Amino acid sequence: MAGRDVELNGLRPGDPRSAVNRTLSDEDISEKIPPFGAFAVKSFRGLCNRKQLYKRFPIIVWLPSYSWGYMVEDIVAGLSVGLTVIPQGIAYAVIANLDPQYGLYSAFMGCFVYCIFGSCKDVTIGPTAIMSLMVQVHAANLGPDFAILSAFLTGCAILLLGVLNLGFLVQFISLPVTAGFTSAAAITIASGQMKSLLGLSGKSNEFLESWINVFEHIGEVRLWDSVLGFGTIAVLLLLMNLKNIKGGPRWSAIAKYVALARNAIVVIVGSVIAFLVSEAGHTDVFLLTGNVTSGMPPVQAPPFTATVGDREYSFTEMVGELGTSLIALPLIAILESIAIAKAFAKGKSIDATQEMIALGLCNIAGSFVSSMPVTGSFTRSAVNNNSGVRTPLGGVTTGVLVLLALGLLTSTFYYIPKATLAGVIIAAMLFMVEFHAASEIWRTKRIDIIPLIVTLVACLFLGLEYGMVVGIALNFVFVLHQTSRPKIVWERKIIDSKAILIVTPDQGLVYSCAEYLKHQVIKMATKESVDLVVIDGTHIASVDSTSAKVLVSMAQDLLLQNRTVIVWKWKRSARCTLLRMNREVFQSCVKNDENLEAIVKEIKSTINR
Amino acid sequence: MAGRDVELNGLRPGDPRSAVNRTLSDEDISEKIPPFGAFAVKSFRGLCNRKQLYKRFPIIVWLPSYSWGYMVEDIVAGLSVGLTVIPQGIAYAVIANLDPQYGLYSAFMGCFVYCIFGSCKDVTIGPTAIMSLMVQVHAANLGPDFAILSAFLTGCAILLLGVLNLGFLVQFISLPVTAGFTSAAAITIASGQMKSLLGLSGKSNEFLESWINVFEHIGEVRLWDSVLGFGTIAVLLLLMNLKNIKGGPRWSAIAKYVALARNAIVVIVGSVIAFLVSEAGHTDVFLLTGNVTSGMPPVQAPPFTATVGDREYSFTEMVGELGTSLIALPLIAILESIAIAKAFAKGKSIDATQEMIALGLCNIAGSFVSSMPVTGSFTRSAVNNNSGVRTPLGGVTTGVLVLLALGLLTSTFYYIPKATLAGVIIAAMLFMVEFHAASEIWRTKRIDIIPLIVTLVACLFLGLEYGMVVGIALNFVFVLHQTSRPKIVWERKIIDSKAILIVTPDQGLVYSCAEYLKHQVIKMATKESVDLVVIDGTHIASVDSTSAKVLVSMAQDLLLQNRTVIVWKWKRSARCTLLRMNREVFQSCVKNDENLEAIVKEIKSTINR
Repeated sequence: MAGRDVELNGLRPGDPRSAVNRTLSDEDISEKIPPFGAFAVKSFRGLCNRKQLYKRFPIIVWLPSYSWGYMVEDIVAGLSVGLTVIPQGIAYAVIANLDPQYGLYSAFMGCFVYCIFGSCKDVTIGPTAIMSLMVQVHAANLGPDFAILSAFLTGCAILLLGVLNLGFLVQFISLPVTAGFTSAAAITIASGQMKSLLGLSGKSNEFLESWINVFEHIGEVRLWDSVLGFGTIAVLLLLMNLKNIKGGPRWSAIAKYVALARNAIVVIVGSVIAFLVSEAGHTDVFLLTGNVTSGMPPVQAPPFTATVGDREYSFTEMVGELGTSLIALPLIAILESIAIAKAFAKGKSIDATQEMIALGLCNIAGSFVSSMPVTGSFTRSAVNNNSGVRTPLGGVTTGVLVLLALGLLTSTFYYIPKATLAGVIIAAMLFMVEFHAASEIWRTKRIDIIPLIVTLVACLFLGLEYGMVVGIALNFVFVLHQTSRPKIVWERKIIDSKAILIVTPDQGLVYSCAEYLKHQVIKMATKESVDLVVIDGTHIASVDSTSAKVLVSMAQDLLLQNRTVIVWKWKRSARCTLLRMNREVFQSCVKNDENLEAIVKEIKSTINR
Repeated sequence: MAGRDVELNGLRPGDPRSAVNRTLSDEDISEKIPPFGAFAVKSFRGLCNRKQLYKRFPIIVWLPSYSWGYMVEDIVAGLSVGLTVIPQGIAYAVIANLDPQYGLYSAFMGCFVYCIFGSCKDVTIGPTAIMSLMVQVHAANLGPDFAILSAFLTGCAILLLGVLNLGFLVQFISLPVTAGFTSAAAITIASGQMKSLLGLSGKSNEFLESWINVFEHIGEVRLWDSVLGFGTIAVLLLLMNLKNIKGGPRWSAIAKYVALARNAIVVIVGSVIAFLVSEAGHTDVFLLTGNVTSGMPPVQAPPFTATVGDREYSFTEMVGELGTSLIALPLIAILESIAIAKAFAKGKSIDATQEMIALGLCNIAGSFVSSMPVTGSFTRSAVNNNSGVRTPLGGVTTGVLVLLALGLLTSTFYYIPKATLAGVIIAAMLFMVEFHAASEIWRTKRIDIIPLIVTLVACLFLGLEYGMVVGIALNFVFVLHQTSRPKIVWERKIIDSKAILIVTPDQGLVYSCAEYLKHQVIKMATKESVDLVVIDGTHIASVDSTSAKVLVSMAQDLLLQNRTVIVWKWKRSARCTLLRMNREVFQSCVKNDENLEAIVKEIKSTINR
C-alpha cells in the first residue's frame, strides 16, 4: 500500500489527481512508446544529460556500488559459464562449418562489451546454435571471412534498429512461429550431427541432405565413434538428472555443479579416452578434432573483400552472397537476446533499445577479433543465473577463461573426439525442440498450432530463413482473416410495431471486411423482412475509406428496399468518417441516443410526416 | 411495409419468430458465405437440381419471358455499344502492341458467351485498356500467340477461382489501391500514346520510357499528326459535353446519342479526312493504321507452343515468360467485372461466383478465336445502360456488328490515322485518372491517401503488377499496425479506499499487440500507483496464444509489484483461452459481475483474510 500513501500525500488541493474517479488523458502517459519507426532523436539530443548517460552506459550505475562480496559470486558464475562456453563454442564452430578456434574467438568479446553496455546481469552473449546454423551455408562454401563479415553487418543492423527504435519489429514474430522455427533449427542441427555421431563422411548442411547422407553411407558406420557418441548423450542426460536423485544438501550442491559443468566433463573425459587410446597406438579408433590454431585471434578490421579459390569478391558481392541472411540474422539475434533479458528481468521493465545497442556493439567489436555472429544464449544465461551471478562483471571472468583456453589449451583440443562434440550438440538440441510450447499452444488455442507446424515444416524443407518468412506471412494471413470476418451479433426486436434488426459487429471495419458485412446485413434484413436496420457501433473503433464507401452503398441498397438504416452508438471518429464520406446519406441516420425506442419513434414520425 | 405484413401473417403460434425480441442464431443465416477457400462442392452436387441450373444458366430464366418489345431496345443498345467497341477495340489492340484486327477478335466472343452465362444485363465483356496494357510487354516482345495464351490461362484461372469460391480475394484490394492502380494505368497508357499523337517513332511501353522517348525525338514532331491528334481530343471533349448545353428535348436526345457514339464519329471523320488527303496525292501527311487483315479469325485451339524468331517456346516456357501477369490478370479482370456488375445491380445482390464463371468462359472461348484477355468494360457498360438495354441479348447485336465490321470494313480501317486513335485513347484515359476517388478518400480519411499515392507511384515506376503488390502489401501493413496498437482507454477510480486502474483496449488481442499492451499497463499501474488493475474486456472478442502468454507474464509481473489483476467482463472464448493458458494465475481473477464495487470488496476480504 506504500505506493498509494505516497501518492495521496503528494497530492495538492486542486490537483486533478485528487478527483476520485477520472479518465486518464494522453498526457498522463508521459513517456509514450514512440510511433512506428519514429526516429529516437531524443537519444542523440539527450546523450549529454545524466539520465541518458546512465541509460546508455549501465556500468556507471552498478560499478561504483560494487562490493567485494559480489566478486566471489561473479567469479564462480563466470567460471561456470566459461566451462560451458568452451565446449559449446567448439561445437558451434563445427555446426557453422568453421575451424574450432572460431567458436572460441566468438566467445569472449561479447562478454567484455556486454559488461559495459548491458542492462541485465544474467544475459551472456556468445555463439549460439541457431546463429551458427544461419551462417553455415556461407561459411561452408566461402570460408570464415563471410562469417566474420556477417557478424559485422549483423551488429550494424542491430545497432541501427536499436537507435531507430525499430525493435518492435520482432513483435510480428508470434509464439507459434518462434516455437516452430526453434524446433526446426534444433532438428536441423541434430540431423547435421548424425554424421559425426556415427563417424560417417559426406556433406550434411540441411535436414533432408543430412538424412540422405546418413542412409547412403549407412554401411560405413564406425563402431567406436558411434559408441562414444551415443555414450556421450547418455552420460549428459544422466548428469543432467543427477539433481533429481534424493540426497543430503551436500549431494544437492555437488549435483547442481556437476549438472552445470556437464558439457565440460564429457568433453574432458572423451578427450582423455581418445588421448589414452591414441597413446596406446590405436590412432584410428576415433575421428578427432585435429589441430586447432593456438593463440589470440588477430585484431583487425572485418574483411570487406575476400578471395575464394580463384574468385575475388568485392564488398557488394559479399553482401550479395550473404543475401537474406542479413535480414534474418539481426531479427533472430534480437528475438533471442530480448526474450532472455525479459525472462530474467522478473517483472522489471527491460530497456529493449539499450539491449539492442549492447548486442549490436558486441557483434561489431566481435568482428574485429574474427567472431561469427553472436547473441544471448539461453543455456548459458540460465547457468549464469543458477550460479548466482550478481553483476555483468561475471562475464569478464568468462571472457578471461576463454582467452586462457585459447592461449594454453588448444593443443589438448586436438584430442576432442568429433563424436563427443556431436553428442554434446545433439543432447542440447533435444531440449530445444519446443514440445512444451507446442502442447501449451494446442491446449490454449488449437488454431495457433497451424502456424507452428507450417513454420516447422517450411523451415525443415525450405531452409530456416524462408521457413520463417512463410510462418510470419501465414500469421499475417490469420490476422487479416480475423479482421476480414468480424463476428456479428444479430438481434431482432419489435419496437412500436416496427421490426428492427440490430447488427453488432465485434470489431472495427477495415476494407477487407466491408463487402462481407454488407452482404450479410442485406441478406439478413431481407430474410427477416425488417423495417429498420440498426448498426450498433459499440465495438467499432474505426472505419477506413473503403468500408465507409461500402456502407454508403449498403445504406443506399437498403433504402431501395424501403428499409431505414440507423448508425447507432458509433464512436466519434468512426461516425465522422461516415459523415465525411457521404453526409447526404448518413446525416439523418446517425444516432447516439442510448434509448432505441425514442429513436424509432422519432424516425417513425419523420416517415409519417 | 409489405414485407412485415407478409411475415406476421405467415407466423404460426409457437413459431420462434413470434417472440418479440430475440437474438438470431447461426442457423438463421441459412445460406452462409462459405469459409475461406471452401470448395463449393454444392455447385457440382447440385448442378442437377433446377435452382442450380437456373443459377448457372441465367439465360434459361430470362429468355422464355422475352418479349418482342424488348428487342428494339436491346438492338439500339447493342448498336451503340458496337459503335463504341469497334474504335476502342482497334485502339486497345494498339495499346497491346498487336495488329488492329486482334482488338476486334477480342470484341465479339465475350458478347455471345456472356449472353448465356451472365447475370447482369448491363455488363459488356470485351477488350479494355488495362487488360491490353497488362499483355503489352509480352505481345510487344513475343507476338500475339502470348496474348492469346494469356487469355486462355486467365480464363481458366478465373473459372477456377469462381468454382472454388475464391472471389473474396479481390476484397483484399482496397479502394485506395484500386484508385492508385487505375490512375497509374491511365497515365501509363496515355503516356504511351503521346508518341503516336505527335507522330514520333521509337519504343514506348512504360511510363518513363514513353516520356524519355518523346523528349529524345521532340525535334521530329510531325505537324499534321499533332494537329489531328490534339484536334481529336478537343472534339471528343466537346461532343461529351454537348448534353450540358441547354436545348429542347429533341436536342437532348441527339446530344445523348452523339455523346455515346463520339468515338465512332471522330474515327470516321478522321479516316475520311485521311482518305481524302491521300486521294489528293499527299500520302505522307498522316501516319495511317495500314493494312488490317480482313475476315473472321481462324477458329482454333489457343497456341500451346510458339516460335519467336529462331526460338521455340514450349508450353512451360511460355507460361514462364508470362510469369506474374498470370496472377495479376485474373485478379484485375475479376475486380473490374464484379465492380461493374455491382455498380449496375442497383441494390440487388450479385452472384459473384456466377459472374466469375461467365467471365472465365468468355476468356476461354475468346482464346479459340485469337482474343486477348477480356473483362467487363466500364465505359461500354455505361453506354449499354444509357441506351436502355433490357436483357443480355443486347450483346448479341454488338457481337454481330463487330463480325460484320471484320468482314466488310477492314479495308476502310486502312485509313484510320494513328493520331486519331491516340487521341481517342488519351481522351478516354483523362477520365480514368481517379481524381474524384482521391479527393473523396482525402476528405474521408486522410491516412488512406498514402496507399493510393504509393500504389500510383510504384505502378508508374516499377510497373503495374509490382506496383499493385506494393500497394496491397502496404495496405496489409496498415491493418497490421492498427491491430498491433489498440487504443486503450484508461480510467482511475477509488473504490472502498483502493486505487483502481481500469484498462479498456478497443479491440481483440493479437500477438503483435501483446507486448505493447503489457508495457503500457505496467507503466501506467506503476505511475498511478494503484492497488488493482482491471482489464475490461468489453471489446476483446478474441485472444491468441501469444497474447495469452504475455498476459500471464503481465499478471505475474503485477503480482510481483503487489498489485492484483482482475479480468473483467471478458467474452467467453477469450476468457477460456486465458484460463487454458494458465489456470493458476487467472482462476481467482476472472470476474464477470457487472458491479465493480462488489468485486473489489470480495477481493479485499480475500486479501485481508
